[in-house]
This record gives sequence, structure tokens and C-alpha cells, in this order.
Amino acid sequence: MTWRALEDRCWRLARGLVELGVSPGDRVAFLGFNSHRLFECYYVPSRIGAISVPVNIRYAAHEMAGVLADCAPKVLFADTAHWELARQMQRETGIAFLIHADDGPAPEGAAVSHDAIADASGHGPDCDPEGGEDIRMLGSAGQDVAMLFYTGGTTGRPKGVMLSHTALFTNALGAIPIYGFRDREAQLLSGPMFHLGSGSRVFTAPLLQNLTVIVPRFEPALALQAIETHRIAAVQMVPTMLQMLLDHPDFGRHDLSSLRLVSYGAAVMPQALLARVMEALPGISFCQAFGMTECAPVVTALPPAEHYPGSKTLGTIGTPVRHVDMRIVDEAGCDVARGATGEIIVRGPNVMNGYWNQPELTAQALRGGWYHTGDAAWMDDTGFVHLAGRTVEMIVTGGENVYPVETENALALHPAVSEVAVFGLPDARWGERVHAVIRLRAGMQTDAAQLTAFCRGLVAGYKLARSYSFCNEALPQTNVGKIDKARLRREALQQTSALA
Amino acid sequence: MTWRALEDRCWRLARGLVELGVSPGDRVAFLGFNSHRLFECYYVPSRIGAISVPVNIRYAAHEMAGVLADCAPKVLFADTAHWELARQMQRETGIAFLIHADDGPAPEGAAVSHDAIADASGHGPDCDPEGGEDIRMLGSAGQDVAMLFYTGGTTGRPKGVMLSHTALFTNALGAIPIYGFRDREAQLLSGPMFHLGSGSRVFTAPLLQNLTVIVPRFEPALALQAIETHRIAAVQMVPTMLQMLLDHPDFGRHDLSSLRLVSYGAAVMPQALLARVMEALPGISFCQAFGMTECAPVVTALPPAEHYPGSKTLGTIGTPVRHVDMRIVDEAGCDVARGATGEIIVRGPNVMNGYWNQPELTAQALRGGWYHTGDAAWMDDTGFVHLAGRTVEMIVTGGENVYPVETENALALHPAVSEVAVFGLPDARWGERVHAVIRLRAGMQTDAAQLTAFCRGLVAGYKLARSYSFCNEALPQTNVGKIDKARLRREALQQTSALA
Repeated sequence: MTWRALEDRCWRLARGLVELGVSPGDRVAFLGFNSHRLFECYYVPSRIGAISVPVNIRYAAHEMAGVLADCAPKVLFADTAHWELARQMQRETGIAFLIHADDGPAPEGAAVSHDAIADASGHGPDCDPEGGEDIRMLGSAGQDVAMLFYTGGTTGRPKGVMLSHTALFTNALGAIPIYGFRDREAQLLSGPMFHLGSGSRVFTAPLLQNLTVIVPRFEPALALQAIETHRIAAVQMVPTMLQMLLDHPDFGRHDLSSLRLVSYGAAVMPQALLARVMEALPGISFCQAFGMTECAPVVTALPPAEHYPGSKTLGTIGTPVRHVDMRIVDEAGCDVARGATGEIIVRGPNVMNGYWNQPELTAQALRGGWYHTGDAAWMDDTGFVHLAGRTVEMIVTGGENVYPVETENALALHPAVSEVAVFGLPDARWGERVHAVIRLRAGMQTDAAQLTAFCRGLVAGYKLARSYSFCNEALPQTNVGKIDKARLRREALQQTSALA
Repeated sequence: MTWRALEDRCWRLARGLVELGVSPGDRVAFLGFNSHRLFECYYVPSRIGAISVPVNIRYAAHEMAGVLADCAPKVLFADTAHWELARQMQRETGIAFLIHADDGPAPEGAAVSHDAIADASGHGPDCDPEGGEDIRMLGSAGQDVAMLFYTGGTTGRPKGVMLSHTALFTNALGAIPIYGFRDREAQLLSGPMFHLGSGSRVFTAPLLQNLTVIVPRFEPALALQAIETHRIAAVQMVPTMLQMLLDHPDFGRHDLSSLRLVSYGAAVMPQALLARVMEALPGISFCQAFGMTECAPVVTALPPAEHYPGSKTLGTIGTPVRHVDMRIVDEAGCDVARGATGEIIVRGPNVMNGYWNQPELTAQALRGGWYHTGDAAWMDDTGFVHLAGRTVEMIVTGGENVYPVETENALALHPAVSEVAVFGLPDARWGERVHAVIRLRAGMQTDAAQLTAFCRGLVAGYKLARSYSFCNEALPQTNVGKIDKARLRREALQQTSALA
């Protein structure tokens, strides 16, 4: 598909939404695997002032309903694989229209199909000076909210991160020299496009005129084949995906000589894995990005020039990118001394407008004009930033963020569970895994398999505990009466190392 | 000076302006040669919501008074060389406060001196969480106007181009990969900082942490010495400046081995001069930028990779930079076919908010959401853009823009002048020079020297005619009764080539 064809399709889709009654400020959501249609849905809603919401397909149904009730889209695009789920969501949350965004005929319940609109005739308003003025007046721009991305929250209530055109555009423009992206090279989108890790590449693509190859979802065999077939130069992976690629039996059987740049992020990269990747893919540039959805997303980067065997900076998250102001502060908001640990706070045109419908949480997160990341870090003498844990407890597993309270709430519903504490433990495959400590109710029994089966459907699969410990005594408490997770985590780590 | 020291000086200057009564929306102007104080005055006013106006020191006094009456600054910074002029401007236009921005004691009439404020104690609000909240609330951001730059106008009335934070920041961020700027390398600002050509480097400097060496004004000997002394890597020049450097007797006597990047723009580069520069500075990267103040300023660029002997793109202005949308359209606003000539129009976050106090002119320039540049061009099969003259008559001489009407109005005041037509002719040194055709009043005589002396003081020096033709007959007219400048220009070119 040419850029011109994409541009025309987007305008026709925008007109189609207007005909369905979508107005400026309305939300338009997308539920499905990666596709060129999801790529289009990044761009279409804001052309008429609406807000695009790519939905995480991994949510359990009741979590998804919570998100959709929160943002209340007027239109939901969905692919065939998620069509029945979309219909359920429509019934539960009152979405006005479903649009079928897939190949084949539109199934029951579809107001219209994506391609029926996109494939119609007619050009964008810029090629059609007679007829285009009206629709262009609707478009949002600058600080207007262009997209909502949902992330977990410490309270269990999901947070809709409001990102403006300025934020998304600044991240895209600023990324180019950081990663060393090149014009017109082929890129692969294999990570989930409902996250900004891959989603941000939707916005760099037209700036760079990248041939963009999209695979429906990450599977090592699909990704390896796509790299070979389309002579892919640039890929982006979370560490878990890189490991799955390397471990795949076909890894050595594919021609990966077109690869030029591998960027990684969204989770801590184990140094052993990085060394293995650099050895397996010699002569390739690597770039690490650190950030979060609230920053659209990049905050710091470790550029290709720092990636060489023996580099002392490989264990850091690099330096702040040029378009952000970053500070490391103490609890009073004052800069800590170089070398001391504090919280990373960020200011810049890339920072979110706030959380959808949550003004108090927004004011708290953006207090003093700075976004408070909840990540603890320190800066060394050379200006490189070292992560030092999180000031709020959050588990990053396979590139997804899990707030323990969500898993704890699900487990607590099980009749055999008296007390529960969830935290992250290091994991060779997932970076961190979700671990649960369970105090059994007196006289009752259960096991890991039963608990996981019980929670499946209550929370997204990536939020399920992957390991458990059981006990019959009360869980230890801190001196303010909260469960002492730090102590439980230390004990779990000792057990693990004793086993190894 | 470190960046931390500069940051603190800027906050103290901002507080000083607040103490003088400067409020959000007020204008703060600067009249002087290049200096670190002018650099600071790019940043200071917007920190309290005011608007910075660097004034072209080449204006004749009455032109300058026109500009200052138009923007009506509350405060005018001026250096010692321009102090008496600043006092005259204060009397003529009612400026409330003058600030002396130079070394030495503050002269008579100064409300305060720049350094007296900047050198005081106290830090910026970010280092001073107790005392800083108040002043930070005043700052402008995003689409708010940060600066005004004046350019000439077709009617002779100067136009104050309103540029937002977003516009200036986008140009700076987008420039980095285009030019291939590198972090921490030393740059020289030798062109006039009251123009965005050099001014835009004020905004890239902190992004890149450039050591920035500022010389008061462009003189070849000063620039050559600065490059050698400070091991300058990056310089920006208009073609005339490059020619003056090469022609200088000391050119070969300086160590210029630190030079890595020479960027040029603001006027058409004669191909013979470019070939000479590339030969004289072998192994150096060259980059051409094309743009205008209204676009903050870059629109297209010819990157370093296109600069090699025999490159077929050297005569073009390159391709649109990534952060702009650019089209070439006919008079109806429709895209012309590839290869056909039309007007360049531009859209993007870099485009101005409009012209200060001139809503009709703004609406005309930004009609349909696109800035209409007045530059005619065509795009070749490979996507490179070729300039093809201007749709409005404007002369670019030594990097300055001259609208003929300004010189014509001055010449018409002379008693011996009956009719006058001014246009540009090719010039080896200035790119174009201002040429005047004069019809003498019956029975009267004058000459070039007399006319130039008469006009000096009425218009800026660069607007004075550098060559004249005289006649006694009526000037030829087009069939709509306007002076036929195209014919006069053809005749002047024939005379020139006959002389050569």
C-alpha cells in the first residue's frame, strides 16, 4: 500500500465515522490483532476531532468492559477473532456501532465494514479542494487529545492516558536521531500495537517513509519469516521476544542479513540475554529505550554507540532524550545529589495531558508541572541513569505492566485464600514473573493449578501468578500493619537460590 | 558559561522583568550585536509569558521606529553601540524601560543593567522548590507566542511573524537528524542573531549541549580566528559570508581542521561558489536549508549525503524536511503535476501563528490551513525541489530580504526622480543586488552617488540600490498599466552580458 493510498483510505474512513454520527471529542476504539487497519485507526479518529483508543486484547472480559465503560466509545472496530467479544462489550457497555475490521464479509451486528468505507472512491480533502474544507475543520491538533492508552493502576482501576498530537509527534520526531532510524528502510511491527512500544512506530513510519510490515501477533516463526521475506532492517522487541527468537529452532535457518537495528525496551534487559543477542546478531546496531505510556513513551535511551562488548553503560537506561527534561528528586521534590537515588520526574512536550476522567489522579501525577514516574533511579558521574527499583510496586512481565493489587483482588475471591501477597520475582524468560504468597484458610486446601484456573477470566493472562508459595500462618506485617512484601520477597529469593 | 549558570541567569532575568512590571503577553525587545545576552533574551521573556523581539540592527531609524511602534515593547534591551539609538526609540515610541545589555557601567537612561540582574544570587525555581512556584505559573508554552521576528512586506509595512514554542522547538528537534548535528560539538554563531538563520541555533544548542561561540557580528577575520581558537566544528553561513571567508587574505593561514559541518541557506547558492567552497574545505559535510521566518524557518533541506562533486541535486533546494507537509499548487490550490511549476505551500507544527496585529494578512497567508510562501518551484522525478523564482517580487541580497517597494518609496522622494522601478539582478558577491531604474524629471539631473546618499537613513543599508540605470522616457508598462519590471530586468541583463 502506498502512502497516498493510505492517506485516501484514512480520509474516507474519517468521513465514514462522521456519517455514523461521530463528533469531535467522541472516542473510537479498536479491538483486534495487529493489522494495517489498526495502523489506520491510529490516524483516522483525530482527523474529525475524535479520540482513538486501541484496546489491549489480553484483558479478561470484565477488565475490558471496565475500560470500555470508562472511555465509552461511540464506535468499536473489531477483527473477526474478537468479534463475539466485541458484541459482548457492545451489550455490556452500550457502544452504538461496531465496525468489522477484517477480511471477508461483515458478520452479524456490524454497522459497516472497515474496508467497505476505506475502499470506496474519493480522495482526501487536500486533493479535492472543492469538497474537503468541511471535514478538515473538525480535526484536532496540538495539545488536543489524539489517543487514549489504558494502563493498570495501583488501585486496580485502569488509567486512560490522554496523549496529545504534540506528545505523540514530539516522541516520533525526537526518536529519529536517538535510534538512528533511516529513511525508507523496512521495519517490522510484531509487538502488540495496542501498546505505544510498537504504536510509536506507527508515527515514525510516515516521517521516514518506512516500508512497514505488520504481523498479526508476535510468534517467533512469523517474525523470523517476515524478516527474511521482506528484508526487514529495523525491529523492536521486548527482551522476552528477543529470547523467544533466539531460542526458536529455526533461528539459524533464516536469512537475517537485512537486519540493521534492533531496539528493545519496556522491561529490564537481563545482561546475559543482551550479551547472547549481541553475539548472535553481530554487526547490528542495538538501542535501548526506557519510558512509559505517560511519556509517549521514551524518556531515556542507550544509543547504538554504547552497545559494544565490555561497554560499562550496558546495565544503565542511558541518558535523557533531547526532547525531555528529566530530574531525579527526593520526596520533597528537590534534586538529589549525583549518585543518590530518587524518583525520576519528567517534563516536556511528550508528557500526557492526564488520565481520562481522573482529575485528582492527574493532579497528583503531574504535580508541580512534572510527571512523577514512580521509578527510582540514580545518575552516575558520566550522566548515565541506573534504575533502582520502583517507588510504586509494579511488575513488568514480558513487557506488560502488572499492578499486584489486580492479581491479589482476584485470588482473594477464592474461598481457600485467607491472605494474599503478590510481587515480582526475577525470571529468565519474562524478565519478572508474577509470584503469589497464599495463606490458606484454616482447614482448606488448594493448589497452584486450581488458583490459576480460578483467576483465568477474572484478569488478563499476563496478570496470572506463575508461581506460588503456601503457608498456614499469618503473613508478616510492617510496623504500620501492612503485609511486609519486602520480607516475603527476600525469603522467596533465598528459597530460589537455595534451590538453584 | 555552563548550562546551569545560564539557566540560573535566565530565571533571575525573568524575575527582574517581573519586577519592572512586565506581564504575560507584553513584548520585550533586544537591540544589539550578537552576544550571550541576546542568547539569554531568546529564552527569558517567555518564562513569564512575555514575547521576545530581536530587532534587526540594520534598519534605518524610521524603519526601526515603525517596528517598535508596531510591537510596542515595554522593555528594550540594548548594547552600548546602540544605546543612543535605543534612547531615540524610547522617546519616539514610548518604551517604558531600557536595560543596558553590555559590559561596563549602565549609561544614562538605563532602568537597570542586564548583568546586574543576571549576576545576582539565587537559583531557578526548579532548584528552589520553596520560592519558585509563583514565577513558573506565568510561563507560556505550546502554541503560545514565544517570539516575534520582523520581516519586510510587499506593501512596505513590516510584518511581525509570531512564532510559538511549538514552532521553534519543532524546527530545532527536526533539524538534528537533517543536518546531522552531533552532541557537544562546538558551534559558531557569526550571522546576525536577530534572524532565525542563526537564531534557530540558539534553540538547538541546549538540545545538543553545544559549546556555542558567539562573535558580535560577521567579519571574516573574526570568524576565521574563532574557528581556530575554539576548535569550531559547525558553522552556518549565507553564501555571501562563505565567499568573504574564502576571499579573505588570511583564509589559508588559519587552522580550520576542526570544521566538520558547514550549513548554508537564506539565499540562492551560486554553483560556482559552492564548488569553490567544497574544494577549499575538503572532507567537510555541507548541508543546505531552505525556508523562511514564517516556517521557523526550515522547509526543505539538501543533506550532507547529496554534497559531492558531480551530484545532480546540488542545484536544488533538496526535499521537504520530515516535520513539514509541503505541496506545490496552482492558483486554485490544486496540486500541480510532477515537473510543473507552482507555489510552495507549507503546513506543520513549525508554521507561524500569524502576523502581529495583521489579521487580514494572516488569514490570506494561512488560507486553507497552509502557509503560502510566495516561492515558485517544481519537483523532479526523484522528489527534489527546484526553485523557479518568486510569485511575489522580493530580492535576496547577502541573506537579507528586500521588498522593492521599500527602496522605490525612498527613491521617489528625491526631487529629480520622476519614475522608479527596483528589482534584483544577479551579483557575484551578494547573490542578488538591488538595481534601480530611474526616469529623471524633465530638466533635472542626479547620479548614483547622490541618490544613494539621499536614501541612506531612510532605509536599511542593505536596501540601498547598488546599481542604477537612468532614462528620460516613461518606463514601459504592462497592459494593466503597471511598470513592466520583467521587461526592464531583461534589458538590464542584456546590457550586463553585453558589457561582460
